[in-house]
Formats: sequence, structure tokens, C-alpha cells
Amino acid sequence: MRRILCLMAAAALPALVQVAQVAQAAQAAGPYRNPDNKNLSDPLEGTYPVPYKLPVVAEITADLHKVRAFIDRATPSRVVDRNTGQPVTDFSTPSPHAIVEPSPNDFGIMNYEMGVMHAGLIKARAVTGDQGFTAMTERHLNFFNDRLPYFREQEKRFKLGRANSFARFVAPHSLDDAGSMCAAMVRARFAKIGPDLSHIIAVCADWVANKQVRLPDGTLARNRPQAWSVWADDMYMGIPALAEMGHLTGERRYFDDAVKNALNMSRYLFNPQLGVYTHGWNANNPDAPRFHWGRANGWAVLALSDLLDVLPRDHPGYQDVLAQHRRALRGIAELQSEEGLWHQMLDRERSYMETSGSAMFVYAIAHAVNEGWISPTTYGPIAQAGWAGLSSRINAQGGIEGGCVATTFANDHVYYYNRPVSVNAMAGYGPMLLAGAEMIRLVTNPDIAITDKVRTYHYGPKKP
Amino acid sequence: MRRILCLMAAAALPALVQVAQVAQAAQAAGPYRNPDNKNLSDPLEGTYPVPYKLPVVAEITADLHKVRAFIDRATPSRVVDRNTGQPVTDFSTPSPHAIVEPSPNDFGIMNYEMGVMHAGLIKARAVTGDQGFTAMTERHLNFFNDRLPYFREQEKRFKLGRANSFARFVAPHSLDDAGSMCAAMVRARFAKIGPDLSHIIAVCADWVANKQVRLPDGTLARNRPQAWSVWADDMYMGIPALAEMGHLTGERRYFDDAVKNALNMSRYLFNPQLGVYTHGWNANNPDAPRFHWGRANGWAVLALSDLLDVLPRDHPGYQDVLAQHRRALRGIAELQSEEGLWHQMLDRERSYMETSGSAMFVYAIAHAVNEGWISPTTYGPIAQAGWAGLSSRINAQGGIEGGCVATTFANDHVYYYNRPVSVNAMAGYGPMLLAGAEMIRLVTNPDIAITDKVRTYHYGPKKP
Amino acid sequence: MRRILCLMAAAALPALVQVAQVAQAAQAAGPYRNPDNKNLSDPLEGTYPVPYKLPVVAEITADLHKVRAFIDRATPSRVVDRNTGQPVTDFSTPSPHAIVEPSPNDFGIMNYEMGVMHAGLIKARAVTGDQGFTAMTERHLNFFNDRLPYFREQEKRFKLGRANSFARFVAPHSLDDAGSMCAAMVRARFAKIGPDLSHIIAVCADWVANKQVRLPDGTLARNRPQAWSVWADDMYMGIPALAEMGHLTGERRYFDDAVKNALNMSRYLFNPQLGVYTHGWNANNPDAPRFHWGRANGWAVLALSDLLDVLPRDHPGYQDVLAQHRRALRGIAELQSEEGLWHQMLDRERSYMETSGSAMFVYAIAHAVNEGWISPTTYGPIAQAGWAGLSSRINAQGGIEGGCVATTFANDHVYYYNRPVSVNAMAGYGPMLLAGAEMIRLVTNPDIAITDKVRTYHYGPKKP
Repeated sequence: MRRILCLMAAAALPALVQVAQVAQAAQAAGPYRNPDNKNLSDPLEGTYPVPYKLPVVAEITADLHKVRAFIDRATPSRVVDRNTGQPVTDFSTPSPHAIVEPSPNDFGIMNYEMGVMHAGLIKARAVTGDQGFTAMTERHLNFFNDRLPYFREQEKRFKLGRANSFARFVAPHSLDDAGSMCAAMVRARFAKIGPDLSHIIAVCADWVANKQVRLPDGTLARNRPQAWSVWADDMYMGIPALAEMGHLTGERRYFDDAVKNALNMSRYLFNPQLGVYTHGWNANNPDAPRFHWGRANGWAVLALSDLLDVLPRDHPGYQDVLAQHRRALRGIAELQSEEGLWHQMLDRERSYMETSGSAMFVYAIAHAVNEGWISPTTYGPIAQAGWAGLSSRINAQGGIEGGCVATTFANDHVYYYNRPVSVNAMAGYGPMLLAGAEMIRLVTNPDIAITDKVRTYHYGPKKP
Repeated sequence: MRRILCLMAAAALPALVQVAQVAQAAQAAGPYRNPDNKNLSDPLEGTYPVPYKLPVVAEITADLHKVRAFIDRATPSRVVDRNTGQPVTDFSTPSPHAIVEPSPNDFGIMNYEMGVMHAGLIKARAVTGDQGFTAMTERHLNFFNDRLPYFREQEKRFKLGRANSFARFVAPHSLDDAGSMCAAMVRARFAKIGPDLSHIIAVCADWVANKQVRLPDGTLARNRPQAWSVWADDMYMGIPALAEMGHLTGERRYFDDAVKNALNMSRYLFNPQLGVYTHGWNANNPDAPRFHWGRANGWAVLALSDLLDVLPRDHPGYQDVLAQHRRALRGIAELQSEEGLWHQMLDRERSYMETSGSAMFVYAIAHAVNEGWISPTTYGPIAQAGWAGLSSRINAQGGIEGGCVATTFANDHVYYYNRPVSVNAMAGYGPMLLAGAEMIRLVTNPDIAITDKVRTYHYGPKKP
Repeated sequence: MRRILCLMAAAALPALVQVAQVAQAAQAAGPYRNPDNKNLSDPLEGTYPVPYKLPVVAEITADLHKVRAFIDRATPSRVVDRNTGQPVTDFSTPSPHAIVEPSPNDFGIMNYEMGVMHAGLIKARAVTGDQGFTAMTERHLNFFNDRLPYFREQEKRFKLGRANSFARFVAPHSLDDAGSMCAAMVRARFAKIGPDLSHIIAVCADWVANKQVRLPDGTLARNRPQAWSVWADDMYMGIPALAEMGHLTGERRYFDDAVKNALNMSRYLFNPQLGVYTHGWNANNPDAPRFHWGRANGWAVLALSDLLDVLPRDHPGYQDVLAQHRRALRGIAELQSEEGLWHQMLDRERSYMETSGSAMFVYAIAHAVNEGWISPTTYGPIAQAGWAGLSSRINAQGGIEGGCVATTFANDHVYYYNRPVSVNAMAGYGPMLLAGAEMIRLVTNPDIAITDKVRTYHYGPKKP
């Protein structure tokens, strides 16, 4: 019966077949034989839908450069006239028509997804030593620094509100506006990249720490789409900013708030039976059916991972956060698909394999192994298999195929399953950079022995 | 590897491909773009395999009329000669060859599925105010009233047993014979549709309340296919009749029995880990592997829903029944597929999407929202998404595609997965009418605010 | 979206399509209509992907003979010169080039899989009374007896180590070398088949009982692929040998050790939530993500079943072993697919249907019913449905299609899902013989009544 539906669907979806053909381009080389097995007539070696093999540093590095080049091209940093498209050159007096030049890929350079891209570029530079990775970060931060006064003045005069291209920094009004870029700018300061943006950091941090709506218990919340909602995405939109502010200022209150949110949001959203997060919760409907959306889980573990990176080990919440991170990574790891990627709905094998959530998972797992938070055994091969899947989704132009577009906290599987994918889905780019960089760390980790035995891979502690 | 099996299967199943082509007819319009999004170049809007949108009352009403017309045509109510097919006109002396005219669709007009159809028609009339919906109910009930004496006399003379067309009313001998039609006839009395059938009601109610085999703890049971079996289907075959008898007579013992069965059968059959019912249980094998057949779950929640409709709120079992209904609806809701329908085996994504169970779920969820038993948030969109799937299965003639034919309590997944579907599968028709009518109530519910935001739908309590 | 990936995969996997065409040969007769339903126009009877019907003893017997003939052809028992391929005829002085003639199917005649084949042949003979089934066993055992002195002498002179064709008996060094064949040779002694091989039995039993590495708690372990690993496979490689040694010698210490391992390994490996085993565990990573590989579960229940066959009922561990066996069989039974077979990864519907694990399950379930360990109700039809699937995988030459090749304890789903299948995968042959023989016992079991009712099958205790 299933095949019947399959045939029907194929017949009834000509428009989507075109998408398939485009997407196929990035994967045309398959099926893949593991090149690490030199015995070409080995009857026990099959083929794989993705390039299953020990990752090669030079190949990962090349992938990272392709992705870097793609996002660099996708993010012009010029001011132009909205009507003519011509560059604005006179910044002495604001024009109401001045905007940041639109991105050919609709990549807003202050969007929260951009914060993850900067984090990825900074990590790629740290791991490879290649300063070229952060040229874009430097370019963007300089642009922010140079042009914020102009757009602040534009706002004062013309009250454009959200139509002001710098609205997020002039007057943030949501976690999406403030948290991710705040964390990125703090990281850039630690890495000594770009100018001192303390003034923007202060505005954004103030929003996260003091102005975002919260539940009575202090949990970061939203009043959309429903009153008093908690989103897993907001773990990332809030916690890393708080953690990095603690890191920057040394003020304990930031760490306390970050830990409280990590644990509270996990209490509202984590499904202990399945070991993964549901997308959201709201006070109207606390026993709601759950939607285990992949990317929501990605945001959650990215947030926990970022927090653990800077949280002092003697903080009273450290062990609880670490335990929750381990639980979530285990649940996620068990749901990995046969292509190394994860499904759009983690527990639904019929939903498509989605790239952005998968990239977040590969990063979080590889990083946790490298940091010693989880065992290299099992988790090392899972990260490696994940990278095999991810690398097959990077196209020749450095675009990322198979990423789900922006998705709201919704209430039915028909919505979630059928979200379109697009090479312009921003959310996958930063995580892909993070994942690749962390994979280089993993396969070059001096404390880990990787062995290629009987057609698969084993990671273990290196003998002293 | 999976695709290999897929290709093999396709090659090896030419006969089923024809079924696919037939089934496809009802869905040929897909893929569907959500017409509520007026921005035709919105890159964040994809397509859906079913018409995902806010349901339109006029369209639902038209669907209900198509289905009503189909079942009206499918259920002649004449007496004919078995051998000649000619109408019997002389009812003064019974002929051994007199039968109720066979249905072109094999829809027996006293079958239990017909009780659900009458319930659906009565609800469609109540919701739309269109008395045309119950013309068929009136026609059938008048026929029963007019011809029962004739067939009772036929039985007395010729002892035809089950070959007597009125066997179910002359001498019911199972829950299938008695319960569903009993409940429907009581509902017709409350709605003042058709003649007074108290005499038939009494016979049927007596079977359910006093004559059906029971476990020592009073749970309604069967001795088929195995001794001392409990079927989830029997929740519907028993509980609504008992509940409606309580409603009709005011006698507490009926409510007590209905509540006891609702709770006992749930104890035997509900899988608390998964949140859904297994099809059956028997005393030979209390720890048996479980089969989470969709329609069995439909019967279960339909029964609980019908009971809650008439059970006095101060009955000591009310809260327990309500709690169980909520648990079951949550478990069911989480398993909805990407087409809004549910799979034949609820937890098996490879089993086909089945219409009759899905219709029962959409009705039960929408009704529970309308009655205030569950929150509109989440459950409203789930009902809506379910209706999107259901409406795509109504063909141009009002036939319902994709409904599983009659299915016994079996013991292996090969049987369940491979049950055929047929437009003549009666069980989906009543639930489809119920679901459509309840969806009209839902989208016109004055207490619920429905908002169409960022390409999906949110249901919430209307602000006062 | 899923269909997109499906189309891509089909396009990108031309090499595998050839595998599909080969595999298809064994199943070309489908779809199947149940021949037990004689009403050819029954609208409630559909078709099945496998021959769903009451198994016919003559057909099972014919299948068993085909498989027997296949493995007979696949296992020459001659000594040849490695370089010339010519038979060695002079056994007075060992040649360094003498080897056991290679199998055309790469079936090593001392491999552990061969122990299961002998068990299957011995059972087929016991059930059918046809001594032809054990001709191959007799041939192999005589060959072992005749040529062991020669190869022992070869080893003494030339120190070939693992290149000595009789290495496993000359100097076993793993459970794989010793356990399964040890159990088979003991069974042959009980059945009076072949020569007295007590000397080989003693060497192999000594390895299992005294020389294999163990965890501090006495659990049989391996130091590959990682230090201190426990494999579900080793339940079979260890427990039946220990149990049969208890059976043979009457020494209680063997039973105690077998029971301890059955319970300890279940404690390390059994997932109580899902009801099935994970493939392995290791001390480096006790909370590892789990991989519910089908065949690993097959080895586990085969081991428990073999232990229960000979463990005295008054042994203090008997009830615990039986309880664990029941738990595992229930979990496995619930995961049966729509073709009666089980998936490569039991809980993953996208992984292919795998024959060897399925054969082990069908045997273990049918045997447990026949022994009265589990109820015939439900489990009888599950075994029957399983046989329907298995029989469709036996090709015209008696080869078994769809069996997963040798597979290590790995750490990622990409590896497990994509393991190739081959007619030369030895592990399925013994279990297929066991399953067929046990199915004959089941359908002819004098204590069980099988009824064919409403298009499916019911097994129950026969009325006295």
C-alpha cells in the first residue's frame, strides 16, 4: 500500500520533481564506495548514499572555504537608495530612502542566523589558523560601527521602525533581534576581530537580560504565536548571549540567568521518553501533542553547548546543564538516519532529511567529544557519519541544499513536514561552518585514537 | 537498500498499481498551495499534498451533501423477491424469498456502520439547519417500523435465522447487531426524526445491557475469534447504546455500566507508553504483542466522546472518563501524518493512510475542542489539518476513498497492513459526516479565535 | 519531500538496481492472494507482498531440502593444495600448502554460522524423520575427525597460525571460533550423528568456559573493536556451548555460567522501553546511543531458547531466563513488518528487511510456542506470517536472499543501514533450517488448534 501512495505522490507532484533535480546536483556522485577500503573486490563492502569514510582535513577545509565564499557574496554591506539601488555616499544627513543593500539571497546581515555564521567563521579561523575566514566578520562589524550613527539619526528623523535597516540595533524588540548577534559580537571581541562594539553589545544584552517577556518563573517567553509561549529556538536566542555576557563581564548574574533558562526550558520542552525536545510549549495547552522538529533541537543543544563553553565549572548549575546536554545528545544520536543526516521531524522517518538541524547536531556532538563531555566511542563515529551526510549537501557554489526555511512554532504535522527547503535558508550556514571546523578538531584531536577496522570506524581514548 | 525493496515492490505489484490509479482520481488536484497566502512569490510558502488552508463552511457543506447523496443511493429500502429481484407488494402473508433489496455497495441498512451514518446525518442537520440531511434517516426508520412485523412473521414461519433480512432486530445476537443502531434510534427520538421505535430500541438495548457475554468483572467481551476477547471496537458497539439509554430513561444503571466499560476496556487495551489503544486483548494471552490499528482507536474515542456527551457531569466516573479521553486524543494527535490523515497502524509510517479511523479522530478532536474538553490551541489546527486530508479523499460521487474494509481482531501485522481499501468500506461514511459537521461548528465557534499567521493557523480562546 | 529524496536516490543508485533485479527473482510471483480463501470474488480479500496462507508441510519440507542442497554444495570437505587446487592424497606427511578446499560461496566449514546449520539439519531430521538432512553433518564431522591430526601436525611443523585451515580446532582464540561449533558437536553426539568428537568438544568448551576474556562480573567480553565490549552476538557464541556442556556432562557449573551470562548480558544490552537488544556495550561508553540491529537480537533469543531447551526446570535461574526470553520475544514480535520479516534495524522502517535475523525470530517464536513458553494465540500467527516472508526469500537454488553479510559492532546508523546483502551471507542458512523445521512442528502440533477465520488465522489451545 505504501508503494501505491508513493507512486501517486510522484505522479501528483511534478513541481517538486524540479526541486529534486536541483537538489540532486549536490549529490550526483553517489552511490559512494568507502575509499578507505582498498580491497576493491571485498564482498563485505557495499556502497553508501553519502561519502562514508574518514574525513580528510583538506577536504573539510575546502568545503569551509566554499561556504565562506557563498555567504560572503550573499551579504553586501553597503548603503543604497531604496528606490534607485544606487550607493549612498553622503552620510552627513540621513535620507529616508537609505537602506542596507539587499542580499541576493535574502540574508539579512543583522539576522540571528548571521550570529551563528560569525561564530562559525571565528571557529574556522581558530581551528585552521586561516585569518581569511573572518574577513567577512570584520567587514560586517566595521560596517555596523561605521553606519549605526547614520541609521540612528535616520530613525530619529523619520521614525521608520522596522523599515529602518538597522532597526535591530537601534531598537531591538525581540530575542531574535538581540541574542544571537550579541553573543557573536562578544566572541569577536575575545578573538580581537573588528572594532569595539560595546555600545551595540550593551543594547542587545539589555534586551535579553532585562526586557524580553518572561514567565513568572523567569523563563524567557514570547507572546506569539500564542500568549505565554516557550520556544526551543529561544534557548539559542537567549542563553548564549547571557553566557557570553557573563564571560565578558564576569558578572555572576548572567551565568545564573543562563543556567536557569537552560534548565527551565528543558523542563518545559524536553521529552524524556524520546530524549529530544518538542518545538514549543504554551500556557494555554500545557499537555499539548509534541512536535519534535529537528532544528528546534539544534538550537537547544547549540545553546547548551555554548553555555558549557564559558560557564565556570564550579558554578552550581554546571553539572545539571552538562547532564541535560548529555541526555539530549544521546536522544538525538539515536535518531540519526541512514544518510548521517536527521529528519525534519526527528522521530518521523517519512519526513525529509534536513540540513540545518543536522549541522547543529554534528557540531554539538563533535564539540562535546572534543571537550571531553561525552565519550569518543560511539559519538565520534556518529559525528563522522553526520559529516558524510552534511558534506554531500554543499553544492559547487558553496550553497547548502536541503535546509528548511524559516518556520514558526506551529501546531500540526502537515505544516512541519511540508516546509520548503531552500539554498537561501540561512539557518544552516553558520552550523555548517561550526560543524566542519569542529570535525577538523575531532579528526586531529591528539587525545583520540581513530581506527579504521572491518569497514567502519572506532574512536577511543589514545593510550598514554 | 530501502529503495531496492521499493523498486522490487513496484515491479512486483502491477495489480495494485491499478488501485493506485483509481485512488489517485480523488486527489488529482495536488500538490496544493495554501490559497490563504496571497503572496504568490513568497519563498517561505511551499506546497502540500492536501489542501492545507482554513476550511470554508460552504465547501464542507458541499462535501457533506455529496456524501449524504452517496449513502442515500447506496441504501435502497424496499422488499424484493430474492430470486426475481422484483418488488414484493403483498405484505399480508410472508414469503420465504422476501429480502431487503440488496445495496449496490453492499451497505446493509441495519449494520452497525449505519448507526454512525445516522448519527452523522443528525449532526449535519443540527449544525447546518438543513433538514434534507436526515431524509434518509427518516426513510430508513419508517421502513423498519413498517416492515418489522412482516419479517418477524417470516421468521416465525420459516426460521431463516441470519438469512432473515431483519435478523438483527428480530433476534440480535451480538454487539455488532444491537449497539450502534440502538444508539442511533435513541438519538433520532431526541431529534424527533422518524417514528417511535421504542420496541426495537428495547430489544437492542436489552441485548447490550443484559445478554452480551462479559468477563467476570462485567466488561463486554466476545468469544470470537478466541475465547474471552475484548475488542476496542466494542467500546463503540456497547458504550454509546448504554449511554443513550441512560440519557433516554434517566436510569443510573446504564451510565454506571457505560462508565465501567469505558474504564475497564481502556485498562485492558490502552498502551500508556504510546498513548493509543491496541485492537484487542484476550484472556489466553494477556501479554500479547500489540496492534495499534487506526480504526480500533477511532471506535474507542468515538465511544468515549459519545459517553461524555450525555453523562451527567456529577457522575462519579465523569472525570476519569474525561481524563482517559484526553490521554487518548493526545496520543492520537501526536501520530498524525504529513497528509493530515493517520496510518492504518498508527505507529507504523509504512502502513497506508486510512480514511475511516482518520475521520473518527478528526470528529473526536474537533468535538472535544468545541465542548471545551481539550484546548483549542494545537488541537484546533490538528483537526483542521485532518480535515484537509479527509476532504481530499471524498471523490466526485461522494464516495470515500482509502477506507479499510471490515477487519477482524487478528494477530499479525501482515494481515493488518495489507487489508484492502474500498469505496464500499462502510465504516468511514458516518465518521466523515460527523467530522465535517463538527468542523463547521469549529470554524464558526464563537468562543474560538482562529488566526492565520506566518503561513499556519492558530486557534485560541477568544478574548472577552 | 520524502518522495524527492526517493527519486534522487533511485536516480543516483544504478549499481544497486542490479542487486534489486537479482533479489527480485526470488519474489517474482507476488503479489499473492491467500489461496485458503476459496471465494475468488470476496471483496474483503486483498493481496499480500508475501504468500500469506496456512503453511503447507510439504512445501516447507521442499524448501528445507532446497536449502540443505545449497549448503551441501557450498561446503566441500576435501584437502587441496593451495597453489594447484589439486586434491592432497598423501596424508602421511603434512604439506605447508595443504588447505581445506575453498567454498564457492566462502562458507568456512568450521565457522560459527556452520554450527547453526548443523543445529538446523539435526532439527529438520528430527522433525521430518528424513535422515538425508544430516548427511552433510555426518560428512563434515567425519572430515574433522579424519583430518585434524594432519592439520595439527602441519601446525607443529609450519606454524601457520590462522592460515591453518583447522586453526579454530587446533587453537581456538575467540568465542566465534569455539562456541557455536562446540554446541553443534554436542548436539550431534546426542543425536548419534558422526564420530565421537569429544576431543574437539573439550578444546572448544575449554575456550568458552575458561579462556575467553570476561568482565570482572564474569560476563563474556571482547577487547574488540573496543576494550571491554559486550556483544549480543556473544550470547549465542557462548551460552549454547555452556548449556550443552551442562547437558552433556551434568555439571552444574556450566548451567550456572550460562544462566549468569544470559542475565548479565541482557542487563547490559536489553532496552526495556523498546523491548529489544542493542548490538553491543562497552565500558568506555556505558550510556551510548543504541543500535537495535536485527541479527544481534536473533543471536540473543536463539541463545536464550537453546539454554531453556536443556536447563533443568528446577535451576534457580530458569524462571528469570524464561521471563527475559518472553520479554524479548514480545518486543520483537511487535516490530514485525508488513512482509512478515523484520527490518535490519528493528525499530527503523526505512532500513531494509533482513532475512537472517528474521529467520532466527521465526524459529525462536515458533519454538517457544511449541514448548509452551508463550501462548499460541498471537505468537502462532506471527510465526506463520514470518514464515510467509522467509519462504519468499528462498531462491530456486536454495540460496537465501536478503541476508546481511558479516557485520561488526559499529557505532553509527550509516554503517548498519547500508550493510550489503548477499546470498553468500552464511548467517541466515542455519536459522532458515531451524525456522522451517519448527514451523512443521507448529502446524502439526497436536495441542494447538489452528483455525482459518474471516481471512486470517487463529491459534489456540486445542480443547481437551
